[in-house]
Amino acid sequence: MPIVAESEARQTAERALVRAGVPVENASVQVDLWLDADLRGVPSHGLLRLERLVERLAAGLVDPKTSGKQEWRGSSYLVVDGDNGLGPVVANAALAKVTARAREAGIALAAIRNSQHLGMLAWYAERIARDGQAAIVLSTSEALVHPWGGRHAMVGTNPISIAVPTGEADPFVMDAATSRVSMGEIHDYANRGESLPPDWALDARGDPTTDPNAAKAGAIAPFGDAKGYAMGLAFELLVSALSGAALGTDVHGTLDAVHPCNKGDVFIVIDGPNTAGLSAYLELIRTAEPASGFERVLVPGERGRAKRAKQIKSGVPIADTVWRRIQHLAHGAQSLERVTS
Amino acid sequence: MPIVAESEARQTAERALVRAGVPVENASVQVDLWLDADLRGVPSHGLLRLERLVERLAAGLVDPKTSGKQEWRGSSYLVVDGDNGLGPVVANAALAKVTARAREAGIALAAIRNSQHLGMLAWYAERIARDGQAAIVLSTSEALVHPWGGRHAMVGTNPISIAVPTGEADPFVMDAATSRVSMGEIHDYANRGESLPPDWALDARGDPTTDPNAAKAGAIAPFGDAKGYAMGLAFELLVSALSGAALGTDVHGTLDAVHPCNKGDVFIVIDGPNTAGLSAYLELIRTAEPASGFERVLVPGERGRAKRAKQIKSGVPIADTVWRRIQHLAHGAQSLERVTS
Repeated sequence: MPIVAESEARQTAERALVRAGVPVENASVQVDLWLDADLRGVPSHGLLRLERLVERLAAGLVDPKTSGKQEWRGSSYLVVDGDNGLGPVVANAALAKVTARAREAGIALAAIRNSQHLGMLAWYAERIARDGQAAIVLSTSEALVHPWGGRHAMVGTNPISIAVPTGEADPFVMDAATSRVSMGEIHDYANRGESLPPDWALDARGDPTTDPNAAKAGAIAPFGDAKGYAMGLAFELLVSALSGAALGTDVHGTLDAVHPCNKGDVFIVIDGPNTAGLSAYLELIRTAEPASGFERVLVPGERGRAKRAKQIKSGVPIADTVWRRIQHLAHGAQSLERVTS
Repeated sequence: MPIVAESEARQTAERALVRAGVPVENASVQVDLWLDADLRGVPSHGLLRLERLVERLAAGLVDPKTSGKQEWRGSSYLVVDGDNGLGPVVANAALAKVTARAREAGIALAAIRNSQHLGMLAWYAERIARDGQAAIVLSTSEALVHPWGGRHAMVGTNPISIAVPTGEADPFVMDAATSRVSMGEIHDYANRGESLPPDWALDARGDPTTDPNAAKAGAIAPFGDAKGYAMGLAFELLVSALSGAALGTDVHGTLDAVHPCNKGDVFIVIDGPNTAGLSAYLELIRTAEPASGFERVLVPGERGRAKRAKQIKSGVPIADTVWRRIQHLAHGAQSLERVTS
């Protein structure tokens, strides 16, 4: 896998988006989000996604300039119609409003529909917490997860991120999907020709399978069995009820290049969290005696952050096909023709 | 196990609390909360807890009259010092304020410290959703859960409840701890002399055990492994940061009769959720083909609600020792002496 200097990856990806019609400032935001995921070791939410966005732009499914239509519902609840804008562009514009409103009101909420894939939620939550506020971020997705006790995918992977300032240099940030694994991980197993662990997935008929190719046409299990299903379903309903987003198998457009994107995003920002005692508590956890088979007890988010710090210096691994495609979109003849024709 | 008429259980439990010094209107609220858990088949949060509260009252750890000191931090963030009041009494007083504020502002938050055990979160969340608002409720507890990869209990069972109006007669309500099981369930296994399933618990040294008596002195696993640990820890930090509650092994007072109760509770109330499509989606889930080994696909909360409807008519099972103790506290000589002396 090529190791690409962080600055080269950034410039090349930005250039590819600009050639596809994205204003440079919006390309910069979108690439920063993706690259942050690659740097943290979450390539499923990284530059891998660039090509699909370029296809969606070419298909006229995306307005790369808009930051959406914002409307206050009460003084602390911002509803946003993303108008097919870029996920992080629409979200950042909303966050500028709700983080300011939370400073006055104590809490404020943004609920967004009709924008592109939100990307890795930790990117948003961490930034809010670095500015001294607490954040809860939810997003929905295509139905890829089966209900507990069900056979077919009916619920999104519906991740949650929570960030809390701790008085330490870095905030606490957790970010997890409510699926057992990501569909990207299923694809990785398929590409490597490995069997899945049991209980990860069902095939197209709804029967358990360890064949990753069968799982691709089937459904992923919810994490934590019935409880994780309950959480994922709760997030699906809550995000739809607050944002007006689609539900279940009606959700499209984060993975394909055919449909408008109709999932939803929710940001809850809370002002003035009290950091007393948080660092001491986290330090007790970090230094706790590990169970056998574990090197140490981890605080969520810290491994990815350490990896990011390292890879900003050493370069970021990007899958060969992904990196070649981005280079082509940035510099190749075909894209140039498309832009200049 | 005695089957007690709902009205008899209610009157007897209220009388026991009144004799212990609780004003009748507060006794009514506290008993309604407990009885709702028994009716839904969650006895660990039911009348089982009455005797311990009476002990705490006798020890002077509880102010049964107060609803706490409320202070607005911004227009939509209510901070409450519970002043050792009863969990549901302090919470209801806070909810009266934040549900009204959410109607104006779109969203409002209450963060409570220094009140007694909050009880079953669904009791609060369901009520908020019946009034047409969405609710997210968090509460912390004594450290009973080990970090993923750790040996000792350092995190609370930290439940979450989410309720959303759906346009159906009943709202969607999920309520789940972030522990794999409750300590009450471990005690049930011990009482029945049965072995625990593997991966549920560690013993006092931090090694895996299937002996429920060893687990009582040890730690419960987080649900959903690393992800559930991340969520439970996030809730611990968030609730403490917002309410000023204690953290980890410093949390006391929901189980003992020795310490003031210093866990925290957080209520987020969101106004005006849009119910379009929610009922149709839930109906697709209810009627989905079940996996082998399952009778049907369940929507979280509905089994408990059906049980409640049935047991309101047929009576509620209460463990023999629990029911006898409540009757004694309500009618027995010893308690009478304490009250009249």
